[in-house]
Amino acid sequence: MFGVTILGNNSALPAFDRHPTAQIVTLNEQLFLIDCGEGTQMQIAKYRIRTGKINYILISHLHGDHYFGLIGFLTSMSLLNREKPIHLFAPKALEAIIQLQLNVANTNLSYPLIFHPIEQEGVLFQHHQFTIEAFATKHRIECWGFKIYEKKLPRKINKEKVLEFEIPMAYYEELQKGKDYINKFGITIKNEIVTIANTPAKSYAFCADTIYDETLVEKIKAVNVLYHEATYLNADTDKAAQRFHSTTIQAASIAKQAEVKLLLLGHFSSKYENLDEFLVEASSIFPKTALALEGITFKII
Amino acid sequence: MFGVTILGNNSALPAFDRHPTAQIVTLNEQLFLIDCGEGTQMQIAKYRIRTGKINYILISHLHGDHYFGLIGFLTSMSLLNREKPIHLFAPKALEAIIQLQLNVANTNLSYPLIFHPIEQEGVLFQHHQFTIEAFATKHRIECWGFKIYEKKLPRKINKEKVLEFEIPMAYYEELQKGKDYINKFGITIKNEIVTIANTPAKSYAFCADTIYDETLVEKIKAVNVLYHEATYLNADTDKAAQRFHSTTIQAASIAKQAEVKLLLLGHFSSKYENLDEFLVEASSIFPKTALALEGITFKII
Repeated sequence: MFGVTILGNNSALPAFDRHPTAQIVTLNEQLFLIDCGEGTQMQIAKYRIRTGKINYILISHLHGDHYFGLIGFLTSMSLLNREKPIHLFAPKALEAIIQLQLNVANTNLSYPLIFHPIEQEGVLFQHHQFTIEAFATKHRIECWGFKIYEKKLPRKINKEKVLEFEIPMAYYEELQKGKDYINKFGITIKNEIVTIANTPAKSYAFCADTIYDETLVEKIKAVNVLYHEATYLNADTDKAAQRFHSTTIQAASIAKQAEVKLLLLGHFSSKYENLDEFLVEASSIFPKTALALEGITFKII
Repeated sequence: MFGVTILGNNSALPAFDRHPTAQIVTLNEQLFLIDCGEGTQMQIAKYRIRTGKINYILISHLHGDHYFGLIGFLTSMSLLNREKPIHLFAPKALEAIIQLQLNVANTNLSYPLIFHPIEQEGVLFQHHQFTIEAFATKHRIECWGFKIYEKKLPRKINKEKVLEFEIPMAYYEELQKGKDYINKFGITIKNEIVTIANTPAKSYAFCADTIYDETLVEKIKAVNVLYHEATYLNADTDKAAQRFHSTTIQAASIAKQAEVKLLLLGHFSSKYENLDEFLVEASSIFPKTALALEGITFKII
């Protein structure tokens, strides 16, 4: 399972029961929390996200609608006596804010909070199942987008066949790389008999807040699912640029140039109650578009 | 109108759709926000509180469930281009936390935020219609309770009569104090003809978080409505003391000793889904008790 669940899709001010930015990426048994606006812990409870599985938190930038819920989430995990570490990737200044808030409350977290300041583009974290990368976006303050992608070996084990040919488990990883197996009688078992071709590794990119910026295209080229903000409709293109935000048409244009499989639009301005027009406009440029509606889980296809 | 609207009544962890502490006190055209846990701005929207009228914010202490929603509320007011000042009364350390969060976002508020650090018990603010006082409570960290009380002159103007006797408006305040009026013909208009006796000035006390502490009784003696925390039921008296919180029986005992007119119980622990027993236990000691349920406005009687 590789998917993204939307917890908040509104910009700046909460409105119309839409919440500030927060998303949960699920990759097998790992959960990643991307951004954490105010009320995220309530949204997590509402959508029954298993908080114990959230081991990685990524914060794009330090505008409040992207992180004011973080301190509450972190201290709640402590009240619940969490012991497993949390890895937090964020702009450097966040560390002092968290520390100050823990200090005034005379609180020590019950678990290790491992702070990774984001200092440059590139790989933030390597795990045997996935990689997390950061890339810069152009916003009013320092802002980072994130790419999470699976790591996959080219071949998948055929469970029945490996048992039938009595191949030891220790050799599975070599099989997954495409190697043949020579058994104790010196007989070669051809790789394609005991494995099947794997599906290609998939990727998700979260473009945070950004002005229309074609340099993003290379950074997110051909990801499977792209989240790109669309704070405004096309009529507000000037306002979008002034505020370092994007429109529907701009988000769709980036998705088209990057040749992604699915575009998710979010970070809607509080001036819009009805969001239908966002989909109409964006899909005129890039038909494989969906609105990042709260509570929906999009599979990374 | 003098009343208190409950926006959040839960302790520490949000649970069962109960929110962390926040209350709105309404006194005529003035609104006071007391404490501001995470999500308060959403609760304010839900219950259609007129944010433009909130000119005073009181923060009891710097545990997150009492103030993590403040920065979001303050910045949202700025996004809405508020111009009127907000007076914020809080422990001194809060100022640096707010300033740091505004700095990293490169934000200047659109309105003056006037920070009043609470440094000792006594009057925090005098207004011609009300007084705000702070008193210390005993909690794990520095913690303040608040008393808001009306200022009233002894007599109320009888609007028909003052017109009938052509008494100039400039003299109304003297009438309210009980003085007679001598008109241009030298005739004395007796005060009781043009005024009526006023109702006594009323008061509300918010006891924040506190261990059972009988020294509170004198500080809140005979207030009309008392909010006292009851984090736990009586069976958890030991746990309450360890954590510097109170039980139902303890809250009711304080209310009884202070001879208040109505006791509101709140700050319920997340371990309790059903709150019925809180009312049963407290009213066995002090019958004029109500649960501070969210969305309800209690008149200061």
